[in-house]
Amino acid sequence: MTRYEEIAEGVITLINQGVLRPGDRIPSIRSASRSHQVNPLTVMQAYQLLESQGWVAARPQSGYYVRARLVKRMAVPEMTRPTQQSVELDVSDFVFDILEATRSRSAVPLGSAFPSPWLFPHERLSRSLTTAMRRIDPWSAVTNLPPGNDELRRQIALRYLAAGANVPVSEIVVTAGALEALTLCLQAVTQPGDLVAIESPTFYACLQAIERLRLKAIEIPTHPDEGVDLVALSQALLTHPIKVCWFMTNFQNPLGSLMPDCKKQALVDLLARHEVPLIEDDVYGELYFDRQPPRQTKSYDEKGLVMHCASFSKSVAPGYRVGWVAAGRYSQAVQRLQFMTTLASSIPPQVALADFLKYGGYEPHLRRLRRALATQLAMTSDAIARYFPEGTRLTKPQGGYFLWIELPVMVDAVALHRLALSKGISIAPGPIFSAKREFRHFIRLNYGHPFTEQQEMGLATLGELIKGMMVSST
Amino acid sequence: MTRYEEIAEGVITLINQGVLRPGDRIPSIRSASRSHQVNPLTVMQAYQLLESQGWVAARPQSGYYVRARLVKRMAVPEMTRPTQQSVELDVSDFVFDILEATRSRSAVPLGSAFPSPWLFPHERLSRSLTTAMRRIDPWSAVTNLPPGNDELRRQIALRYLAAGANVPVSEIVVTAGALEALTLCLQAVTQPGDLVAIESPTFYACLQAIERLRLKAIEIPTHPDEGVDLVALSQALLTHPIKVCWFMTNFQNPLGSLMPDCKKQALVDLLARHEVPLIEDDVYGELYFDRQPPRQTKSYDEKGLVMHCASFSKSVAPGYRVGWVAAGRYSQAVQRLQFMTTLASSIPPQVALADFLKYGGYEPHLRRLRRALATQLAMTSDAIARYFPEGTRLTKPQGGYFLWIELPVMVDAVALHRLALSKGISIAPGPIFSAKREFRHFIRLNYGHPFTEQQEMGLATLGELIKGMMVSST
Repeated sequence: MTRYEEIAEGVITLINQGVLRPGDRIPSIRSASRSHQVNPLTVMQAYQLLESQGWVAARPQSGYYVRARLVKRMAVPEMTRPTQQSVELDVSDFVFDILEATRSRSAVPLGSAFPSPWLFPHERLSRSLTTAMRRIDPWSAVTNLPPGNDELRRQIALRYLAAGANVPVSEIVVTAGALEALTLCLQAVTQPGDLVAIESPTFYACLQAIERLRLKAIEIPTHPDEGVDLVALSQALLTHPIKVCWFMTNFQNPLGSLMPDCKKQALVDLLARHEVPLIEDDVYGELYFDRQPPRQTKSYDEKGLVMHCASFSKSVAPGYRVGWVAAGRYSQAVQRLQFMTTLASSIPPQVALADFLKYGGYEPHLRRLRRALATQLAMTSDAIARYFPEGTRLTKPQGGYFLWIELPVMVDAVALHRLALSKGISIAPGPIFSAKREFRHFIRLNYGHPFTEQQEMGLATLGELIKGMMVSST
Repeated sequence: MTRYEEIAEGVITLINQGVLRPGDRIPSIRSASRSHQVNPLTVMQAYQLLESQGWVAARPQSGYYVRARLVKRMAVPEMTRPTQQSVELDVSDFVFDILEATRSRSAVPLGSAFPSPWLFPHERLSRSLTTAMRRIDPWSAVTNLPPGNDELRRQIALRYLAAGANVPVSEIVVTAGALEALTLCLQAVTQPGDLVAIESPTFYACLQAIERLRLKAIEIPTHPDEGVDLVALSQALLTHPIKVCWFMTNFQNPLGSLMPDCKKQALVDLLARHEVPLIEDDVYGELYFDRQPPRQTKSYDEKGLVMHCASFSKSVAPGYRVGWVAAGRYSQAVQRLQFMTTLASSIPPQVALADFLKYGGYEPHLRRLRRALATQLAMTSDAIARYFPEGTRLTKPQGGYFLWIELPVMVDAVALHRLALSKGISIAPGPIFSAKREFRHFIRLNYGHPFTEQQEMGLATLGELIKGMMVSST
């Protein structure tokens, strides 16, 4: 064994002992060369070896950090296989019962749908709010009726442009969070009884909207890495009267899947051939961990069929309830629906965000947020690998803040949810993400909170509970 | 003629010549006694005579002011007589076409649905926004999910209490303006095809909501002074499967009618006997001109059937889009619907209003606002009396900022709307307030803007246009 291999082996031992954990910075080249009394180039060779084996990752100007060792230890869940029949839904009350149980602030928030509020720049945003309200023309209360504040819509259009999508300002409607955008879009293109294609699993708000509007759903097989299966979708489009698709191509909730760019292009082309609109829920698109942002379906949309819904709730301003939709050919229909349901979006949060986007340092904030989430993912995945039983499968999200976990098949996720809650831990059980209450032994965990001892204890307890359920079921 | 009668006659002459106009203060008793060289008691006798004849009104500590002379010159429209059949609606696009034409800021805003933005305390509100956001707990983004910010809901409950209604905080759901509250309430108690009892004429947003939710409407005769006719309603409840009533008992839009307190009690009792809920749209309730506020239907509601919807948009904070509903027994249903459509109301406007209600001087602001609107009503009514043709009938609202005007029968209000718009004047034509496009020769005028020369010119031009249409139709 050469010297540099010995040094690398030493680091691996520290990692395996849990002394060095995912997200930890390993000693700098300079300090390691001093402590091992070797040439810095030897240390660099050691670290490059560790990097090539996937133990550590280099961050420019910062050093080497321990990576999560998921690939080595845990398998990924397989492509989902929902029965492809259209169904009417009856899940809403079930979802509410689960969600209301998870709202307690004291619980370890692994079941939460929200990231930690401490990750967001409240003070800077409040300054924007103050400044912008000082400058505002009182007439804006009337002139900012749908489609919303002009400057904010212009700022949003500029971000589309930077991301490679040419979206005219006139297409953009500001809404009360992405959820209003999504439900308005769904109403704009459906009548009761119509069929909506959705992913499987699906964000429960999508299921609830479909149920509330008396629509029917068809679940399309979805891959935990790459998102919805286009072959299955293509088949469904031929055999079912699908009126609209509601998908999340970026960091899907709950899977965390990211549809590759070329597949997005294929998706848009497929839907264009069938003249079927796409409602895209893209609230996590800014939370990518790669160097490059994922492309948006909107950038491939030549026929105006894509209604791209997003918001600032997950990226900078939770609680402001400012979302939007670039609604393509459906823009006027969406505006009219909004005029009839909430009239318009609140002005102060809109002007605050317009100011923040211009002057507040949105990009540096996003970079910090992405780094924090990536670290939290590494820490959380590692803890799961340590505490959860053999046979657990885990997704490897490239963005967002949700992990989708397949537990051993005898574990009932809803029972686990109740048990965990009694120990002060919330989780999101798989069946709330399914039109037919499938994913009985799956859970979604939130890693959007700083990885504290409380988080680690919560995951350890959860692991014990799962193991206990396995024993009692045998 | 006695000396004091001579003095009174002199004032009447000045009023008839238009030198003194409604809202003008007439000379003080002291200055009049000097200029007429009489004892102040003689002037006081003269002024009391003028007051008893309805020419002037005394304001404590302020003097005597010229009253609008509607009673003398103009009749009031009669009770409406809609055909009492239930109907499906098809008015929404028609309403949009009219509304979109009236949104230009340059037009004389007689057709506007909004009062002048200059009547509201923007700067004071912005201060509340800044202060409240500085104090806010970032976690509130999660904890203020439906039903909304606790402190704001407590402040709203305190106002109910002061108005004589005991409404528990738990019943109150904060919404995106009253419109979201109203549409959520309607969804909470109906299925498509259900029948809704409404006033005639009706606020167009109510018609649009009924159409959008695929409900049917039955229009109840409504009196321009006292609101919906309870005998007719009682009859309709016996003969039709009415699922819910949607009424405005305070300063109805467009009539301006105010249901007397005893009639409100009777309405609530009648609906309680039939177990039919009432959705009350009470956005103008704070804008009363009398010394006493009108009672709220909620204060008579013992069975939790009244869903009282209101907002701050018309009283203090247009553009903030903060409304609420005290939803009685339907509170949880409304919360769940909100969770599925917009998730929750924006936080900054809620905490700003909570602060403003506590510290911002809401009551003094309301008193100023009511005085301004009362004066604008007097000026506007007087101008209409001067410029509109014989046969015009005009309501005498005791609050709010809308006048409902019956024009001579040959005048087509929609044609007048188009003609007026070409002259830079907006109006709201009667048919947009009707399920069957009735009220063909009625218009709603907004007096919520300071009575400037531009307003007066607008009304004069409108009078000429109406007269021209009468000539061309003969």
